[in-house]
Amino acid sequence: MVPDLAPQREVGHRAARPGAGQQPYGVAVTTLATAWVDELAAALGPHGVHTDPDVTASYARDQAMLAEAGTPAAVVLPRDTADVVAVMRVASRHGVPVVPRGAGSGLAGASNAVDGAITMVMTRMDAVLEVSPADRLAVVQPGVVNKALRDAVAGSGLFYPPDPSSYDWCTIGGNLSTNSGGLCCVKYGVTTDYVLGLEVVLADGQVLRTGRRTVKGVAGYDLARLFVGSEGTLGVITEATLALRPAPQKPVTLVATFATTAQTGQVVERVVTTGLVPSLLEVMDNTCIRAVDDLLHADLDRDAHALLVAQSDAGGEAARQDVEALAQLCREAGAQLVHTTEDPAEGDLLLAARRMALPALEQLGTTLIDDVAVPRSRIAAFLDGCDGIAVRRELTIGVVGHAGDGNMHPTICFDPTDPDQRVRAFAAFDDILELGLALGGTVTGEHGIGSLKVEWLEREVGAVSLDVHRRIKDALDPAGLLNPGKVLRRGA
Amino acid sequence: MVPDLAPQREVGHRAARPGAGQQPYGVAVTTLATAWVDELAAALGPHGVHTDPDVTASYARDQAMLAEAGTPAAVVLPRDTADVVAVMRVASRHGVPVVPRGAGSGLAGASNAVDGAITMVMTRMDAVLEVSPADRLAVVQPGVVNKALRDAVAGSGLFYPPDPSSYDWCTIGGNLSTNSGGLCCVKYGVTTDYVLGLEVVLADGQVLRTGRRTVKGVAGYDLARLFVGSEGTLGVITEATLALRPAPQKPVTLVATFATTAQTGQVVERVVTTGLVPSLLEVMDNTCIRAVDDLLHADLDRDAHALLVAQSDAGGEAARQDVEALAQLCREAGAQLVHTTEDPAEGDLLLAARRMALPALEQLGTTLIDDVAVPRSRIAAFLDGCDGIAVRRELTIGVVGHAGDGNMHPTICFDPTDPDQRVRAFAAFDDILELGLALGGTVTGEHGIGSLKVEWLEREVGAVSLDVHRRIKDALDPAGLLNPGKVLRRGA
Repeated sequence: MVPDLAPQREVGHRAARPGAGQQPYGVAVTTLATAWVDELAAALGPHGVHTDPDVTASYARDQAMLAEAGTPAAVVLPRDTADVVAVMRVASRHGVPVVPRGAGSGLAGASNAVDGAITMVMTRMDAVLEVSPADRLAVVQPGVVNKALRDAVAGSGLFYPPDPSSYDWCTIGGNLSTNSGGLCCVKYGVTTDYVLGLEVVLADGQVLRTGRRTVKGVAGYDLARLFVGSEGTLGVITEATLALRPAPQKPVTLVATFATTAQTGQVVERVVTTGLVPSLLEVMDNTCIRAVDDLLHADLDRDAHALLVAQSDAGGEAARQDVEALAQLCREAGAQLVHTTEDPAEGDLLLAARRMALPALEQLGTTLIDDVAVPRSRIAAFLDGCDGIAVRRELTIGVVGHAGDGNMHPTICFDPTDPDQRVRAFAAFDDILELGLALGGTVTGEHGIGSLKVEWLEREVGAVSLDVHRRIKDALDPAGLLNPGKVLRRGA
Repeated sequence: MVPDLAPQREVGHRAARPGAGQQPYGVAVTTLATAWVDELAAALGPHGVHTDPDVTASYARDQAMLAEAGTPAAVVLPRDTADVVAVMRVASRHGVPVVPRGAGSGLAGASNAVDGAITMVMTRMDAVLEVSPADRLAVVQPGVVNKALRDAVAGSGLFYPPDPSSYDWCTIGGNLSTNSGGLCCVKYGVTTDYVLGLEVVLADGQVLRTGRRTVKGVAGYDLARLFVGSEGTLGVITEATLALRPAPQKPVTLVATFATTAQTGQVVERVVTTGLVPSLLEVMDNTCIRAVDDLLHADLDRDAHALLVAQSDAGGEAARQDVEALAQLCREAGAQLVHTTEDPAEGDLLLAARRMALPALEQLGTTLIDDVAVPRSRIAAFLDGCDGIAVRRELTIGVVGHAGDGNMHPTICFDPTDPDQRVRAFAAFDDILELGLALGGTVTGEHGIGSLKVEWLEREVGAVSLDVHRRIKDALDPAGLLNPGKVLRRGA
């Protein structure tokens, strides 16, 4: 089935040029609005549907500067599952594509608008429906902000671990759609590890409930985890039952600096082989150290080649022992400085250097944040490779990453007004992905494929896997209405 | 496509009645053997294909007494992925169904033979291909016995947690296909939590490699976890990359007995709400206690209504504190006896009572082992419900279970030669599933759907989920060749 896109494309085309119009956009859109916009308004009410380009444009993009974005023909803000069903029924009846999105913190363009499509913004469905300490779970709507969930369960002594950097504004629905990670992953895993059950509205408007409230369960296929990480291409998540953990203990923190990446890599490798499980193990390279020191005047060692920050939240003596063992590994690897603290406030300060790495790099220019995960034994090789790319492409590249799980974020700093730098920056972005694959890694550790890395997914997974992806996409969304062009090329 | 089954059905039909034949089976099978058997023999060699009914019958069943089983038309024992590809190509060319299986320890009939089908036995593909301490993973073939993998990684100080009761003879391929659990789940999760990547031969013989060697990765759909737990209905797993953990510390063990199930339930609920994470938390009811005491003469309290066994492997002082906190919860709930030990040998002895529960129940008659997971807050209600079913059906039902994760195994003991008892036993089996669903649970926590619970899956997941299951099955196995009639009804 070929979606009937022509009228919507026209809307998108006009809306994509704010300020260039010959007539007020509101009028233009009203004139062009087709039956399906009226149907949406009838179902969701006038406040649930927007076609004013000033409004729709604000929902056109996530944070992925490299990714293309169209303009939504309409933006809908459902208030409940019934609204989502109504939207999908209208969309499938008229063959209009739908782009689901949360807050738009994504870094791969997964929620970027598609010309002529409906952008479905889930942020109004933001209720924490239940927190059950007895079953150690929460039931939430997709628009709940990650931090709001963390706060909602903290009162019960509980903890929702996945903590992407944008945790104070990204939504759980977005986290589910991209299978988000964060700083916690080295010990606590990623979003999918906390998904017990989902409610999903399918392309045809049917409501699927899958998964469970129980800790274990093997009845049928693991559909919940198929939807997690599928970036809105298979269905729209409208509710999630999430496992929680006991609140962690106060952390003990370590910072160490090194003269070479090889030393840093040795520490990570020995953390793995000695069986230590820190609750956080982050790395910054010299570029990041200097940028952060410039920004925070934190008296960091500006000549250090790499800085490790680690924590243990095992509690009391166990945490002290973990961090002392980490300190010993750092010393054995030849660390220039090793500092530990049991004071959580000082720990927060030390961690602030890591958390400020990206804002600090942004002082150096526009940033392109890449996202590669490599086997943990290859971290030193990856850091060295990024240094080589920076030299070859004559660009500043700061590497910050989750050393404990091998997920690195090389960040290219450049001047976007310089065409030559742009070309080199984009080339360096690809060089980094190439390097990751060559080291046995993946082109995305936690940001997703979105529209940015569709061709890279094809390279990484190969023809057979791509065929299986396509077969599953076609089975669940035969008309190709859900987030077309994301993860997979737009269907033929 | 309708598989060309007639000749194979005939073979199965004959072979299903050993001793009833009018002619020697070997001759009959040879006479009936069709072109595809010759093609299999040409591909796998004469030692890779068996049609002798004495041989094929031995591969006809797993351990699920209630589940129906046909007789394989042929049994193949591939030695490598190329052999599996060859089998699937022959099978798809001729429309012959294929039942993949491991050691046959399953409890739901998932690997039971289908008349006229090829049973593909994966036990010869039993190599541990790699153990990487630096990346904390292992790469294995599916025929590796669970215990062999555990032993293979122990030398590197590593640990593969999933530990089904049959761990000393079940295979990893079977564990993957059913997403096995075990005693470890309360702390360490289930099989799918350890799957990084898979090699899978699809129905048409294509080889899919999916997943990764990295800790994190979100490139594309989570296909690996779609195959895990799909019980051989979507593809044949030929290799797995599995995450490992650091070896656990020596356990500290606790045993406690209670006069009421309510007290036991209270302890479990408080373990959850207080945030304790024991590495093992098992429950046995009075029927099990008495059966074990009869078998082991272990001087157990035969009047106790329930017995809890718990361990912490957190190590040293942390483990002592965990177990003391558990002991305190037991005392507060009114335990009759609380005993703890730091001596691993004594801990093993205490755990032996739990491990011997099923063999002990088998002394009371033929056993039907059920497998229900309920939310942890409903364990006491579930135990009481099972008592009620035992009274109503006038049967002995012993309940043993993984209290820490709510996965219970009520075990019905009966005399199969008594037709009336058989009827009541099968009815009680269903009553228990009904009870589990009524308490918000699932009809299978870790044994799977197999052929035994196909109708129960339909009841549990409902029409929309079933439709999604069917769409995925059809997308990956359009001819319905892989393990037909398992998980889902045989395709229309």
